[in-house]
Amino acid sequence: MERFANRGHNELRPISLEPGYVKNAAGSCFVKFGDTHVLCAATVEDKVPPFLRNTGRGWINAEYGMLPCAANERVEREAVKGKQSGRTQEIQRLIGRALRASLDLAVLGERQIKIDCDVIQADGGTRTASISGGFVALAFAVQSLLKRRKINKNPIVRQIAAISCGLVDGHALLDLDYAEDSTAEVDANFVMDDNLDIIEVQSTAEQRPFSKQTLSTLLELAEKGIKEVSNAQRTLFS
Amino acid sequence: MERFANRGHNELRPISLEPGYVKNAAGSCFVKFGDTHVLCAATVEDKVPPFLRNTGRGWINAEYGMLPCAANERVEREAVKGKQSGRTQEIQRLIGRALRASLDLAVLGERQIKIDCDVIQADGGTRTASISGGFVALAFAVQSLLKRRKINKNPIVRQIAAISCGLVDGHALLDLDYAEDSTAEVDANFVMDDNLDIIEVQSTAEQRPFSKQTLSTLLELAEKGIKEVSNAQRTLFS
Amino acid sequence: MERFANRGHNELRPISLEPGYVKNAAGSCFVKFGDTHVLCAATVEDKVPPFLRNTGRGWINAEYGMLPCAANERVEREAVKGKQSGRTQEIQRLIGRALRASLDLAVLGERQIKIDCDVIQADGGTRTASISGGFVALAFAVQSLLKRRKINKNPIVRQIAAISCGLVDGHALLDLDYAEDSTAEVDANFVMDDNLDIIEVQSTAEQRPFSKQTLSTLLELAEKGIKEVSNAQRTLFS
Amino acid sequence: MERFANRGHNELRPISLEPGYVKNAAGSCFVKFGDTHVLCAATVEDKVPPFLRNTGRGWINAEYGMLPCAANERVEREAVKGKQSGRTQEIQRLIGRALRASLDLAVLGERQIKIDCDVIQADGGTRTASISGGFVALAFAVQSLLKRRKINKNPIVRQIAAISCGLVDGHALLDLDYAEDSTAEVDANFVMDDNLDIIEVQSTAEQRPFSKQTLSTLLELAEKGIKEVSNAQRTLFS
Amino acid sequence: MERFANRGHNELRPISLEPGYVKNAAGSCFVKFGDTHVLCAATVEDKVPPFLRNTGRGWINAEYGMLPCAANERVEREAVKGKQSGRTQEIQRLIGRALRASLDLAVLGERQIKIDCDVIQADGGTRTASISGGFVALAFAVQSLLKRRKINKNPIVRQIAAISCGLVDGHALLDLDYAEDSTAEVDANFVMDDNLDIIEVQSTAEQRPFSKQTLSTLLELAEKGIKEVSNAQRTLFS
Amino acid sequence: MERFANRGHNELRPISLEPGYVKNAAGSCFVKFGDTHVLCAATVEDKVPPFLRNTGRGWINAEYGMLPCAANERVEREAVKGKQSGRTQEIQRLIGRALRASLDLAVLGERQIKIDCDVIQADGGTRTASISGGFVALAFAVQSLLKRRKINKNPIVRQIAAISCGLVDGHALLDLDYAEDSTAEVDANFVMDDNLDIIEVQSTAEQRPFSKQTLSTLLELAEKGIKEVSNAQRTLFS
Repeated sequence: MERFANRGHNELRPISLEPGYVKNAAGSCFVKFGDTHVLCAATVEDKVPPFLRNTGRGWINAEYGMLPCAANERVEREAVKGKQSGRTQEIQRLIGRALRASLDLAVLGERQIKIDCDVIQADGGTRTASISGGFVALAFAVQSLLKRRKINKNPIVRQIAAISCGLVDGHALLDLDYAEDSTAEVDANFVMDDNLDIIEVQSTAEQRPFSKQTLSTLLELAEKGIKEVSNAQRTLFS
Repeated sequence: MERFANRGHNELRPISLEPGYVKNAAGSCFVKFGDTHVLCAATVEDKVPPFLRNTGRGWINAEYGMLPCAANERVEREAVKGKQSGRTQEIQRLIGRALRASLDLAVLGERQIKIDCDVIQADGGTRTASISGGFVALAFAVQSLLKRRKINKNPIVRQIAAISCGLVDGHALLDLDYAEDSTAEVDANFVMDDNLDIIEVQSTAEQRPFSKQTLSTLLELAEKGIKEVSNAQRTLFS
Repeated sequence: MERFANRGHNELRPISLEPGYVKNAAGSCFVKFGDTHVLCAATVEDKVPPFLRNTGRGWINAEYGMLPCAANERVEREAVKGKQSGRTQEIQRLIGRALRASLDLAVLGERQIKIDCDVIQADGGTRTASISGGFVALAFAVQSLLKRRKINKNPIVRQIAAISCGLVDGHALLDLDYAEDSTAEVDANFVMDDNLDIIEVQSTAEQRPFSKQTLSTLLELAEKGIKEVSNAQRTLFS
Repeated sequence: MERFANRGHNELRPISLEPGYVKNAAGSCFVKFGDTHVLCAATVEDKVPPFLRNTGRGWINAEYGMLPCAANERVEREAVKGKQSGRTQEIQRLIGRALRASLDLAVLGERQIKIDCDVIQADGGTRTASISGGFVALAFAVQSLLKRRKINKNPIVRQIAAISCGLVDGHALLDLDYAEDSTAEVDANFVMDDNLDIIEVQSTAEQRPFSKQTLSTLLELAEKGIKEVSNAQRTLFS
Repeated sequence: MERFANRGHNELRPISLEPGYVKNAAGSCFVKFGDTHVLCAATVEDKVPPFLRNTGRGWINAEYGMLPCAANERVEREAVKGKQSGRTQEIQRLIGRALRASLDLAVLGERQIKIDCDVIQADGGTRTASISGGFVALAFAVQSLLKRRKINKNPIVRQIAAISCGLVDGHALLDLDYAEDSTAEVDANFVMDDNLDIIEVQSTAEQRPFSKQTLSTLLELAEKGIKEVSNAQRTLFS
Repeated sequence: MERFANRGHNELRPISLEPGYVKNAAGSCFVKFGDTHVLCAATVEDKVPPFLRNTGRGWINAEYGMLPCAANERVEREAVKGKQSGRTQEIQRLIGRALRASLDLAVLGERQIKIDCDVIQADGGTRTASISGGFVALAFAVQSLLKRRKINKNPIVRQIAAISCGLVDGHALLDLDYAEDSTAEVDANFVMDDNLDIIEVQSTAEQRPFSKQTLSTLLELAEKGIKEVSNAQRTLFS
């Protein structure tokens, strides 16, 4: 199975993580996995959702959007349609859940960090890129809270990254691009910490049911990919 | 770990599948997993989504709703709020995806079967009950199409069922009720066919990351549960 | 004029009132008039509408919905359309107004009881069934307030029931089913208390204007029907 | 019981019907009942609702609105709130139903006449004023269709008018103004043709149930009022 | 270039300003420029937008609407469409901005005056008529605040009026009616105070770019028109 | 008056126009005026708005959006609020109007080019940057239509650019940044072609009325700025 640019079946696309991309956010990261480009930006807010008021605990939530011209075909602007699609909501709920797992929310204290993930260009894997880049934006926002002495202890307890895998034409592949993703028989997204413990697994048969063995194979590919993304994240914080 | 009504860790709640519950639907099933009660009803429509027009292929989609008084606390009516929540959309997308996997959509022909899943009472596992009951409603709607000679060949190629599992207080449990679900460390939903091949896996760390071994344990529990739900479904069609 | 199941012109369909149908509501009643099935459920809320704040008076309001597969033709889900139809709003305003007439709102105190009426199956007369069943749900919710000593005096001052009548093919009929209702020349809904005093009359010429005499005839039929519904309600409280 | 301006219990407020108030509508009427002022305007459209396509039959429907400053307290603009209230929808459904009763829709042919009723100033009875004035706008629009030979036969088969009555402080009164309406024990709206046959009756107990006798008394008052409104309408068409 | 009713190129249409048109508003003015009729009404509210709370400063804002039958072709009701159009929002933002310039908002104190401008009949120039009439409604609302001693000093620091001009078939014309406006090559709206200092200029090439000289010519026409409108306003306050 | 980075009163901020920024759009341009960064992207669509069907004429329209973290304070996502603000609609209507003036729409033929302008970072002047960058995206989309022989003749008849000016602390300044804009006494936006003929002027008194002389001064500054932006655009097409 030949991949674009002679990529191996277990190879990531070239990745780039550029922190500080926008000047107004508390933390930001422009993340690229090949031609998938996502701008992640973190904002610290002094309020929390109603169910957390007066608990001393904080919250992380995420919003996801795609510029109309990001994808192959122009996608109608959700602000014009008047609502976020089911796909958008599903993705931003996943990103929020994944990033919440990186913090001790009691240490964060009663504040919320909102992570905006806006896809500038889409070529497969926008949700996993959003998680991997969103963690960087979040970590820089936390550093700024520490620097400004809003919090005294680092609430981040584990590093989070994510990657997609899939079965394409019978081959298990790491980090699918759009062409691969749209013909995949099985599609899977993995979120893990830097010990390769699992935060979330979502795996779907796109064409026919798959075996436990296939799930294991994809999981192993994901471990390799996430280890590399974690390393790339780590270079920014040393 | 003691469960309600002395249920074993790998035991389902009492399940009941009552077909033909409403007289106007093409197929229907009132499904109960313990105190979780869902009314599933199938409608055949002669139109398909735009991307399928003139392809000769059909479609299955699902809508999910919860009566305001179904849950512990009254939930505001989505018709009043003016939109479906992200949770609702995520669930109905899952149900639709799962049920689509049961058919050869080319044999179904250019028509859509819509599966309405309305939760009358909620006690955990409403989405997996919707899939298991929705399959029954769908199968009866297909039988009616065959009887009325709208289609000549049965498009159903595999039986679909679903179950939830979780890690609660360190114990792997099958078919969580609400009390268990709301304190689970790991929460997982599995959709499989009657060969126990996988249609969808969704597993989330609610409190801390989990190992590959945990995922395997939950998968095995799910296999046992789904085998039993499949058997219950099968008795309706013999 | 022959009616379905040899029903007489002044006969009700078989009626059934099943209280306690859902475990989470403060009071509930699954009401059936023939093939018309409605689940009524009452929730007590500690807040009142703004215009009642600090008046010591309470409020009753109602919400009405229909499952998509309840009627002959599938009806689009209002949560998907993003708003309640004019018909839905008109009906739920009527139910609320009717049930408010059963209480002394000053004795209820500054709380609101919300009555959810969800049509599981529709065969004519869903709004009057909702009122008759909604009263039962309301009464059980009030009993629970009394038992839990939230209120010391019963605020219910009169029993409320409702029925539809109509002129079909020149014949005055009690309790129209869908087939009768859709061909009626005159359509009328009556809400009364158990002294047969009037709470609300709505009568509409569907095909041609009608005389005062016709209105009187329909009113007398309604009195007979409401007496029987009141009796059925009363058996639940003795 | 003394009424404003020494009005008798069975006297209408001064009424005025001014046709042709706006130049762009097919028919229009600025109607006043005392300080209640409503602009009614009719538009002929070449399309009908889907259920009437290819039936050769036409349709009448109505829309109702209130300028924000029409009432005692400014009412928020429904275009800003993003939806019509339940009250608005209930009123415009009543107006449409009432005016449809004035025509033979088969003679009208496959076109729709839309009646816009916009309240410029509100002092009670806006819905009945809208019906009485809406009939005038409709009749002028029909005359214009006849003149332009779009139809050959007059589809209007009866003249329609409406009035409100109520029980205030134990007295039955005709044509309530806002001060009377807001303290009424019983509130009733009547729509009749010029033979005083009934199109619609809506009567509601605002404070306590009422007897059949009260309903009769209010009906007789309405007959007197509607006769006078009909006469006023008739002077415009002779 | 001949204009309707032999109007000169620099002549206004007949204008009329009728204050006190509706009894419930704090101030109101029914303004006519030829066949353009707008009802402007002012409401005083005791709250201000969030960004002004506890600043001691007040606010003016405007809402604009058009009755469905005001224009040549019936325009769908924005309350039915569920939102205000971009055109409506642009116009009401302009009216609000223009009228705010007439007051010292610190003298007004922490209250808001809302100006509703509802077009009863449209024949070009509705936004400028709304500003000219809205100023009158505002001024009467301020007088009422002074009379009721809610404020001690008049916050109005300048009189505001507005007019449209345009280049039609090569001729610069004052106060365009609809027929002129819809064929104009250049369209301009001017808001000025009674010293003819500028509050707002908006000038748009509808067919081809225009020169600085054209802008000057239109500005001079506007000065003449606004002087006359200001005089008409002034007669109401002497 | 000292400006940031010692900029002269009639000096632009450093500008940059980077075409081809996203691979999927027919034409695109990432435009920077200092810290104001906007991504403009053009999509060619084969449909036109209803009023242009079967006229042989095309259309240009624009949509404008701002990433939540673009501005100083995070702005709520319009897709979440469920509608575009009045400000957004006003801006996108201006951009569309301005860019339409650059083409002969009959030569474009019955197709629409949609210009998406998304603000990545905001520091004043986002609407004028969107017009200047949008023209570049449009021109590249047109070149691609010519290359693919969808059209045979270039429909672009004039080059369009825009700039803001203002009076700040009594000084007339070119190309205001956010700090200047938010304290400006007068704010003006100019759109011109490369002959410096005017497409649109919008000038608003933010604090007190201004004279004709001020308008002239701002217009002259704008001419200088637009000449420079035009030159920068031109280097991309030679």
